[in-house]
Amino acid sequence: MRIGIYGYGNLGRGVENAIRQNPDMKLVAVFTRRNPEDLVIGTPNVPVYHVDKAKEMSGDIDVMILCGGSATDLPEQTPELCKYFNVVDSFDTHAKIPEHFKNVDEMAKKSKKVGMISVGWDPGMFSLNRLYGSAILVDGEDYTFWGKGVSQGHSDAIRRIEGVVDAKQYTIPVEDALEAVRSGSAPKLTTRQKHIRECFVVAAEGADKEKIENEIKTMPNYFADYDTIVHFIALDELKREHSGIPHGGFVIRSGRTGKNLENNHIIEYSLKLDSNPEFTASVIVAYARAAYRLNNEGKSGAMTVLDVPPAYLSAKSNEELRKELL
Amino acid sequence: MRIGIYGYGNLGRGVENAIRQNPDMKLVAVFTRRNPEDLVIGTPNVPVYHVDKAKEMSGDIDVMILCGGSATDLPEQTPELCKYFNVVDSFDTHAKIPEHFKNVDEMAKKSKKVGMISVGWDPGMFSLNRLYGSAILVDGEDYTFWGKGVSQGHSDAIRRIEGVVDAKQYTIPVEDALEAVRSGSAPKLTTRQKHIRECFVVAAEGADKEKIENEIKTMPNYFADYDTIVHFIALDELKREHSGIPHGGFVIRSGRTGKNLENNHIIEYSLKLDSNPEFTASVIVAYARAAYRLNNEGKSGAMTVLDVPPAYLSAKSNEELRKELL
Repeated sequence: MRIGIYGYGNLGRGVENAIRQNPDMKLVAVFTRRNPEDLVIGTPNVPVYHVDKAKEMSGDIDVMILCGGSATDLPEQTPELCKYFNVVDSFDTHAKIPEHFKNVDEMAKKSKKVGMISVGWDPGMFSLNRLYGSAILVDGEDYTFWGKGVSQGHSDAIRRIEGVVDAKQYTIPVEDALEAVRSGSAPKLTTRQKHIRECFVVAAEGADKEKIENEIKTMPNYFADYDTIVHFIALDELKREHSGIPHGGFVIRSGRTGKNLENNHIIEYSLKLDSNPEFTASVIVAYARAAYRLNNEGKSGAMTVLDVPPAYLSAKSNEELRKELL
Repeated sequence: MRIGIYGYGNLGRGVENAIRQNPDMKLVAVFTRRNPEDLVIGTPNVPVYHVDKAKEMSGDIDVMILCGGSATDLPEQTPELCKYFNVVDSFDTHAKIPEHFKNVDEMAKKSKKVGMISVGWDPGMFSLNRLYGSAILVDGEDYTFWGKGVSQGHSDAIRRIEGVVDAKQYTIPVEDALEAVRSGSAPKLTTRQKHIRECFVVAAEGADKEKIENEIKTMPNYFADYDTIVHFIALDELKREHSGIPHGGFVIRSGRTGKNLENNHIIEYSLKLDSNPEFTASVIVAYARAAYRLNNEGKSGAMTVLDVPPAYLSAKSNEELRKELL
């Protein structure tokens, strides 16, 4: 399976590493908007090209993995590139998925390629678990908790405050809320009851820390609805202690069965990830395998993780899977 | 979707209840090897027939759900009944799945029906999670723990000991082993380190309890390789405190990514079930929906949970799923 990487940030590097872990895949090229000469990648003897060259390589690449951002890159890139390639993206603006799906579907059906969108863990593995849980336990409630992990968006929001040099924000699920859900009591939980936001902030010399803390805690959408903890620390401590990008979370289905719905059941799926982009990349690479196989069977159009038969993700044969995993 | 239930024990009753929770399904008939006149089922106005009548009803039932046992019933029933119906079974003798699959596949391809086998939670949802986990985290280890829950086979084994009136055996995962796995340390665990077996035993009056306890603890395959705890209790206590059939367990994938595999990730899936047969039934009913839809699209042959696109399980449309769950 010949793979291309389109965009080389944290996610692109994660995909590069994940390809190395899958012997049935080969990295053919990395495409960048930067000057290709300036980009040093982690795999020896793999060329780096400018994105403009991608279209010429339609015959050399089986699946192009799109590693751009959901805000502006993917809404344009995915429909455009699936004219030439099977593609996988990690489009994660939940509210805009139906629109993105439609745009990709139209193009991919014309080109007879597979456009696998919104692959990762949320959307992605978490979506799958919401689906399995709700299809099995029809009478029940879904709960998704995120963390403990770094929210890039919230960290950025803090950095935009005057007097802030740098910042890192952790989203932390509230343990009591998790326990209440696991008990089967099907609690109704407010935003504040589900997650805490903990911020590590480096203030500029002479900045008004009280004012910064207040601005963070009252920031609408980002922090106002949460219990927020703010720590001011030195820049070297931030770099030393908070440079990782861990994440994770929980999808819990609490449901009832029986003649009088007298029996409770809890299905819980959780992730604890040292590196958010590397895990996302690992999911993407497995779905690249599926996209390739589905296309080889004549399938085309947009798809999501909800559409893919699980066996298509594995390098093993169906016989091996039934024998070893079932 | 018109459903038949073939076999009416704990699982059959669970399926009956699950059908009631799914408005797109209708129970058409229950088939039994007993005298149908003697069987009172939980759904009013649904006929009970002798199993011999099933074949005549090929045109009246979209999916026949087979609720017999894996030892002798299903190896015969599933290949036979998929001549006439789409079928779903919960065949759970892991070592014989390849053979069962082959037998069902042959018949179902001839009859152009879908034969969905080994549906439930293990095999079933646990298999799915072993597959997803290993396809995503290629460098890693799989761990499956069962319990806390009642093992019917182990309870039966105790009951066969001379001087035992009744017994219930709980399989309990060892908390320290779970924690070691969750830490990402990828421990090698022996049988003894993973599970404890706790037995509640009612001895006959005058029976030699020490001898019974020793026979249990040294029983090969069932108990000899485990730390086993034996409690002797009175029959009324057994009936009062141990009449439920709870179960559950954990599938954990521990894996590594990164240039030097320096980042650890833990994927954990767990079930906590008040009623093992009712949960199994709920999984089966969701896969009955999938079997029906796949057959309507022209698919036939044997399948397992590994082959079914997740969206086929849900009563919701693909558009709804993408909008609400993805």
